[in-house]
Amino acid sequence: MIYFTSDYCEGCHEKILERLVQTNYEQTPGYGTDRHCQAAAALIKAECKREDLDVHFLVGGTQTNLTVIDAALRPHQGAVCAESGHINVHETGAVEATGHKCLTLPAPDGKITAAQVAELVRLHRTDESMEHTIQPKLVYISHPTEYGTLYSLKELEALSAVCRELGLYLFVDGARLGYGLRCPVSDVGLPDLARLCDAFYIGGTKVGALFGEALVLTHPMLREDFRYLIKQHGGMLAKDRLLGIQFEVLFEDGLYYRISDYALQMARILRSALTDAGLAMQVESPTNQLFPIVPDTLLEKLREKYAVTYMNRVDGHSSCIRLCTSWATREEDVRAFCSDLHRYIGGTHGNG
Amino acid sequence: MIYFTSDYCEGCHEKILERLVQTNYEQTPGYGTDRHCQAAAALIKAECKREDLDVHFLVGGTQTNLTVIDAALRPHQGAVCAESGHINVHETGAVEATGHKCLTLPAPDGKITAAQVAELVRLHRTDESMEHTIQPKLVYISHPTEYGTLYSLKELEALSAVCRELGLYLFVDGARLGYGLRCPVSDVGLPDLARLCDAFYIGGTKVGALFGEALVLTHPMLREDFRYLIKQHGGMLAKDRLLGIQFEVLFEDGLYYRISDYALQMARILRSALTDAGLAMQVESPTNQLFPIVPDTLLEKLREKYAVTYMNRVDGHSSCIRLCTSWATREEDVRAFCSDLHRYIGGTHGNG
Amino acid sequence: MIYFTSDYCEGCHEKILERLVQTNYEQTPGYGTDRHCQAAAALIKAECKREDLDVHFLVGGTQTNLTVIDAALRPHQGAVCAESGHINVHETGAVEATGHKCLTLPAPDGKITAAQVAELVRLHRTDESMEHTIQPKLVYISHPTEYGTLYSLKELEALSAVCRELGLYLFVDGARLGYGLRCPVSDVGLPDLARLCDAFYIGGTKVGALFGEALVLTHPMLREDFRYLIKQHGGMLAKDRLLGIQFEVLFEDGLYYRISDYALQMARILRSALTDAGLAMQVESPTNQLFPIVPDTLLEKLREKYAVTYMNRVDGHSSCIRLCTSWATREEDVRAFCSDLHRYIGGTHGNG
Amino acid sequence: MIYFTSDYCEGCHEKILERLVQTNYEQTPGYGTDRHCQAAAALIKAECKREDLDVHFLVGGTQTNLTVIDAALRPHQGAVCAESGHINVHETGAVEATGHKCLTLPAPDGKITAAQVAELVRLHRTDESMEHTIQPKLVYISHPTEYGTLYSLKELEALSAVCRELGLYLFVDGARLGYGLRCPVSDVGLPDLARLCDAFYIGGTKVGALFGEALVLTHPMLREDFRYLIKQHGGMLAKDRLLGIQFEVLFEDGLYYRISDYALQMARILRSALTDAGLAMQVESPTNQLFPIVPDTLLEKLREKYAVTYMNRVDGHSSCIRLCTSWATREEDVRAFCSDLHRYIGGTHGNG
Repeated sequence: MIYFTSDYCEGCHEKILERLVQTNYEQTPGYGTDRHCQAAAALIKAECKREDLDVHFLVGGTQTNLTVIDAALRPHQGAVCAESGHINVHETGAVEATGHKCLTLPAPDGKITAAQVAELVRLHRTDESMEHTIQPKLVYISHPTEYGTLYSLKELEALSAVCRELGLYLFVDGARLGYGLRCPVSDVGLPDLARLCDAFYIGGTKVGALFGEALVLTHPMLREDFRYLIKQHGGMLAKDRLLGIQFEVLFEDGLYYRISDYALQMARILRSALTDAGLAMQVESPTNQLFPIVPDTLLEKLREKYAVTYMNRVDGHSSCIRLCTSWATREEDVRAFCSDLHRYIGGTHGNG
Repeated sequence: MIYFTSDYCEGCHEKILERLVQTNYEQTPGYGTDRHCQAAAALIKAECKREDLDVHFLVGGTQTNLTVIDAALRPHQGAVCAESGHINVHETGAVEATGHKCLTLPAPDGKITAAQVAELVRLHRTDESMEHTIQPKLVYISHPTEYGTLYSLKELEALSAVCRELGLYLFVDGARLGYGLRCPVSDVGLPDLARLCDAFYIGGTKVGALFGEALVLTHPMLREDFRYLIKQHGGMLAKDRLLGIQFEVLFEDGLYYRISDYALQMARILRSALTDAGLAMQVESPTNQLFPIVPDTLLEKLREKYAVTYMNRVDGHSSCIRLCTSWATREEDVRAFCSDLHRYIGGTHGNG
Repeated sequence: MIYFTSDYCEGCHEKILERLVQTNYEQTPGYGTDRHCQAAAALIKAECKREDLDVHFLVGGTQTNLTVIDAALRPHQGAVCAESGHINVHETGAVEATGHKCLTLPAPDGKITAAQVAELVRLHRTDESMEHTIQPKLVYISHPTEYGTLYSLKELEALSAVCRELGLYLFVDGARLGYGLRCPVSDVGLPDLARLCDAFYIGGTKVGALFGEALVLTHPMLREDFRYLIKQHGGMLAKDRLLGIQFEVLFEDGLYYRISDYALQMARILRSALTDAGLAMQVESPTNQLFPIVPDTLLEKLREKYAVTYMNRVDGHSSCIRLCTSWATREEDVRAFCSDLHRYIGGTHGNG
Repeated sequence: MIYFTSDYCEGCHEKILERLVQTNYEQTPGYGTDRHCQAAAALIKAECKREDLDVHFLVGGTQTNLTVIDAALRPHQGAVCAESGHINVHETGAVEATGHKCLTLPAPDGKITAAQVAELVRLHRTDESMEHTIQPKLVYISHPTEYGTLYSLKELEALSAVCRELGLYLFVDGARLGYGLRCPVSDVGLPDLARLCDAFYIGGTKVGALFGEALVLTHPMLREDFRYLIKQHGGMLAKDRLLGIQFEVLFEDGLYYRISDYALQMARILRSALTDAGLAMQVESPTNQLFPIVPDTLLEKLREKYAVTYMNRVDGHSSCIRLCTSWATREEDVRAFCSDLHRYIGGTHGNG
């Protein structure tokens, strides 16, 4: 079975394992105070072209999301997000478990707009009984989104402007950030995120690391006492150096970018093949996740050899699936898939 | 600087790194459903000599403690523990953050007794306004305790019996379990824990793994839907295989036990030297943590070359410190410490 | 200014004040253990024609909702409700503050269906990554709903059946229950609620009491230790007798029903006048809340003399408002409103 | 049976009932925005001799405590209190249910000191792993305490000074405040509380009201958005006017003080009789709660006619009980108790 189900099917880039072996017997203090965490933080600050920010390393995305949001909000405040936002649909209510409501906005392509946020806040603030409703205080977006789509710099600037004007935090979930930063159609870089957001994270788990996310905090109020919150929510490793080492390897010579480029290239090959096969996309994603609509008969055949993620039923005889590429995707597997797809489509059409 | 501060100063046993390298390109499904997690769970069940239990792999100890306790308790119920219990003093209120109170019992050596638990429950149940107080529902103990002490089998059986009689869960924090299981003075084995507890975990972070704890659940009510809770609290790795692989290596041929034996042996050498130097222990610990009371002048000298953990002031001129050994402690470092201690004590005495 | 804004603009039915005066110097034990709470509970059990249930008296609706839901759910479970459900939109995230997500269903008239619940649960249970999502465990409905609409007995039976089949609790918010029970078009009585629901409450605040709600619990698991939860959430009055006395007065000779009848009669007069004036209703409500769509010019005039609740904008020149009647509504005020409406409509039409 | 169990055994002062009757048919807006709440707030500000504070009316003490503490603390912060503090022992973990730990200090007479608070904070701030422990951020005291004792102005000033120096909030639970303010040995008045505390409340439930507490907030950060938190925790009555009216009556002509004086006078009579009978006090309380140590044989006799609160066992043949007086205590009942005590003591001695 060849897996296109996700970008976390393999271990990690081999350079990371090499470094773990090299550093294994170094003695370091624990809980993120070691020299590797410091070095990795310095590298990330350099990429962000900004010194006045804090970098923390957490074990995973759900952990990072819930810790940031819990740190940012008072009990009566909520997190604004897309209906499809990961925090709203795929984290077992982790945000609610910290006591906070997700205030959702419709977003067919996974993206929300500055205008939507402004209107939500306006409605709240003009409500005669506003104190009976949750106060919007943080905007959560993912970039790339859960549908692989990207915010343009202009869209991100508009969101940032509206958040600052209205006193909301802007937090970007970058679980797959590499695939966004390196996407040819994107004009958003790390310095833009550091300038426009109050918090964002650079995903490791889905972009070449064994595990771990690098959280960047720019807003002074989020930075205060943040380590207490990481510890409280169980996101602080005794051997945090493991995370520091991984991000050192990823950022010391651009490895993070190179492996993102590679995954995007593999996705392009897949996208072309899907399009050539006449399959429509449920959402047009320019990054490493693809969402083709496939006839059920075709899906059945594909699944004999390839593992994919089932998304949703589209109509009586077709469904949307997701295919992911990553740093570890083998080009020969991609080629095999394209070739089989071409062959099956013929057969499927013949059956139709 | 040579570190005796803790048992998590280095990376992990080299066999684990080797296995991570070997398995790196295997494709697996995520979130604990892969073959390595299954194999590791099977090994642990075999060690426990029991099949009807669930094994989950979580990223760290705080995470494991808060998830088990949150799973076990209704909102009005609390966790009984020693005043020195890790959940009470060293996890940034992680249990309270899930809404539950720690009901503490005095325990100068870190251990609580069945009689204490029985009396606490009796007082609660005979209180005319019991509904105004927290209902004790779970007993948390650590084995070894935070002071390195151990429960005897008889003590553990008594705790288990009182918990079952009174309808409380018994949960054992085994962050350093290896050092307890292998301690010559101990008569408690994994099958005992599986028989007597409702939940316990086998610590990896402090016993040779990069990170990760293997949680064993025996009580049916704790087992139900437990994976939701791991995910909600951010303790479920996308690449949970990392944890499965580590526990496979630790348990497939007894490595976990061998490295625990080694750490205990190193501790014995240290303990002898400390005793020979005439230093009293704040608590007598038979495991890998030692708590000598040292004159401040001596401590100052030791700290020039050795990192140790400061515990508490004892009187105007001496303090309790903690020394830890682990799988990674080098015998030459232990010998150097003993030799320096011997030399300093002479000098310190001379100064006195 | 004459208030039609809500059903809680005045104090309480005068018989309640009389009884408070009569009983003022009685000495009673506290926290719901007094004879008045017991007598009121007995009266309510008799109305429900069922003995095996618990009756508790809480201070208000939000309090009752959050306490029941917190008692019913484990941390990974959520409450299914209409998008317009009071818990979802008008309680400042009280349910989320206890750690639980509201799983919303579209419901233009405020009502959800058994089929919607079944489909939501089916989708959850067939999700490959169900553990990454909230488990639906309780269905919350209000009766009458926030739009004044009512469930038929058949609809309620269907909801109950689907909940029991799928293992969910059914909880009915009866903040305005009297107006539903006595509505001529309704076929749902207290014995039906006691038979079909796991928990429901009989609203006092909006139906003649000074304040307070009578919560009826039928499911054994909700009944266990429930008093601890009331206390924990601050809903247990030292002088709970105040609540017991009020519900004694309301139920000892049918006062609750008579004042509900009266409010419904006042609503009928208003409804006729609104309809006669050619105003459409946003939602057709048979109970004591009315939701006419009124031109802004008319609204402006009405507001010179009458206080109403603004609901939402309908189009560029009209809005939906809410008018409420209650036990305390004066018929002369209703008549004045109708007469003014008639007069204004003429004028408004003339302006149009 | 004559009740000395508590100060909430009867309804309320008759002037309050009279006012409820007089105002019953007034129409008011809901949720604390009515003229009675405004008038009561103005009266309380005048008593505090300070305008820049907010006054809110909540239904009860537990509610008030949990709402203030939840409003004040970030997730990693805790509330410092006496071991005997009401929030620690008698509110079913309401504070923990909002996610916050109680950091307790030993206090045999119910009072904590500025020095204890300073030392606790110093220990926290000099802890090498402070982020693994709860950050003290709020000091909770009760005045009078749970043992009826009082802080002197000097003690309160010292606590306030240490809190301000170290950046902690000071919150005073005044469930029985009247009995403290009017106690002849006390030199603390409302203006002192308004000057020295960040939040305090003036208890109604135990001092003549049907129910309700008047919360005074002076610190700007606690005042911000506080109404959202009252609503979220279910402490905001639709007919908040009920609370406003009660505090209007209590403060418009000094009724609150007069009834406190009366209760203190009744307590003095009881105290004299207990002392004359040779009974020691477990704690010397100058206010309306008394804590005599009584032989079990005497207790048994007393309980035939008088209800008292059992506190704790003192030794094999005697126990501590609590006797309370209030605005409603009848002098004839006090005289009867004293006379019976005198008689029984003779008998008891005879038995001894």
